[in-house]
Amino acid sequence: MFPTKKVQTLIGTIIQVEMKGDKHTLEGKLESADEYLNLHLNDTYEIVEGVKSRSLGSVILRGNNIIMLSPVE
Amino acid sequence: MFPTKKVQTLIGTIIQVEMKGDKHTLEGKLESADEYLNLHLNDTYEIVEGVKSRSLGSVILRGNNIIMLSPVE
Amino acid sequence: MFPTKKVQTLIGTIIQVEMKGDKHTLEGKLESADEYLNLHLNDTYEIVEGVKSRSLGSVILRGNNIIMLSPVE
Amino acid sequence: MFPTKKVQTLIGTIIQVEMKGDKHTLEGKLESADEYLNLHLNDTYEIVEGVKSRSLGSVILRGNNIIMLSPVE
Amino acid sequence: MFPTKKVQTLIGTIIQVEMKGDKHTLEGKLESADEYLNLHLNDTYEIVEGVKSRSLGSVILRGNNIIMLSPVE
Amino acid sequence: MFPTKKVQTLIGTIIQVEMKGDKHTLEGKLESADEYLNLHLNDTYEIVEGVKSRSLGSVILRGNNIIMLSPVE
Repeated sequence: MFPTKKVQTLIGTIIQVEMKGDKHTLEGKLESADEYLNLHLNDTYEIVEGVKSRSLGSVILRGNNIIMLSPVE
Repeated sequence: MFPTKKVQTLIGTIIQVEMKGDKHTLEGKLESADEYLNLHLNDTYEIVEGVKSRSLGSVILRGNNIIMLSPVE
Repeated sequence: MFPTKKVQTLIGTIIQVEMKGDKHTLEGKLESADEYLNLHLNDTYEIVEGVKSRSLGSVILRGNNIIMLSPVE
Repeated sequence: MFPTKKVQTLIGTIIQVEMKGDKHTLEGKLESADEYLNLHLNDTYEIVEGVKSRSLGSVILRGNNIIMLSPVE
Repeated sequence: MFPTKKVQTLIGTIIQVEMKGDKHTLEGKLESADEYLNLHLNDTYEIVEGVKSRSLGSVILRGNNIIMLSPVE
Repeated sequence: MFPTKKVQTLIGTIIQVEMKGDKHTLEGKLESADEYLNLHLNDTYEIVEGVKSRSLGSVILRGNNIIMLSPVE
C-alpha cells in the first residue's frame, strides 16, 4: 500500500505529526488528507516533551512541511 | 472535506498562520486561497507571544512556507 | 481574486518581499511575476531594520523561497 | 536504474533515512515508496549516535524532507 | 518579460547567485538555465564578504535552493 | 545543454554533492539521476573539511535537498 494510501487508512484516528521548525510535534484526530499530505486535524494539541500542551483545535497542516506522521496507539 | 476545501470555508474570516522561519505568526482576514495554499490576507498583524504586534496590512503568503493555519475563534 | 492574480496587480509598483534565510527583506519595483511567484524586481534594496541598505539593482527571486510579499504604501 | 526505481528494490529490507531537521536519522523496514519518495516504514527506530534509540513503530515520511536514504547492510 | 525569461537573457554573462544555507554566495558564467531555475555555471567562485574565495569550476545548482540571482555589472 | 542534461553526462564519474543541512558534503560515483536531480551514488563518502570521512556505500539523494553538485576533477 502506497504511503499516501496508508495515510487515508488513518482518517478518523489520532495521529502524531512532526512538523519542520522548532521540534514542533502535534497530536490530533485526522479529519482528511490529500495526495500532497496536506492534513486537516481536529482536537489538536501541541506535544512538548511527550506531554499535551497548548490546545490548537482545528488546524490545517501544509504537507511539504511534515517530516513524519504516525498513528498513536 | 479535503484540507484545501476546508481552507476555502475560512474565506472572509480571521485566521492565524504560522510561517517558516523565526516563529513567524500572522493573523488576518483571509481574502483568498488557491490549491497551493498561497494566501491573500488583509488587516494582517504579526503576533508576538500571543499579542498583536506590527501591522502589515495586505499580504501575500507563499503556500509552501506555511506550517499551519487555523481559524481564530 | 486569487493570491497570484493579486500579485499581478502589483506589477509596476514598489513591493517588500521577505525571503527565507537570515531575515532577508528586499524592496524594489515589481517588473514581472509568474504563477510560481518567481519575481523580477528592479531598483532593489536590502532592508535592514526598516532602512534601505545595500543596493542590489535587478534581481530574480525564486518563488518557493518567498515567505511573504506586500505592497509598500 | 533510476533513483526511484532503486528505492523500489529496497522494499522489504531495512533502510536508514536521514531527514531534515535536527540530525534526524531513522532506521526501519521499508514497506512502500512512491515516485516522490514518500516512504512507509515499519519497526522504525530513531538512531542517535549510531545506536537505536526511541521506537517509533509504523511511520510515514514525507519525501521532500528526506536528505538521503541507504540500505542497512 | 517573465522572471524565467529574464534569466535566459543572462546566459553567457557573469551572475551572482545566493543559495540557501550558510549565506552561500556564488559567482560564475551562466551556461544554461531551465524553467525550474536549475543553473549550470562555469568558472564559479564562492564569494565571501564580497571577495572571490574558493574556485569551484563547473557546478550545477538546484533551482529550488536559489534565493536570489542577479547580473554582475 | 540544460542543467539536468549536463548531470546526465556525469554518470559513471565521481561527483561532489552539497546537501542541505549541516554543511553536508558527499562524494561518490554517480550511478543514475532523474529529471528532479534525485541521485543514486555508489562508493559514497562524507567529506569533512575536504577529507574523505565516513563511508556510506550506496545512497539515494533527494533532488530538492541538493544545493550544488560538481564533477571531481
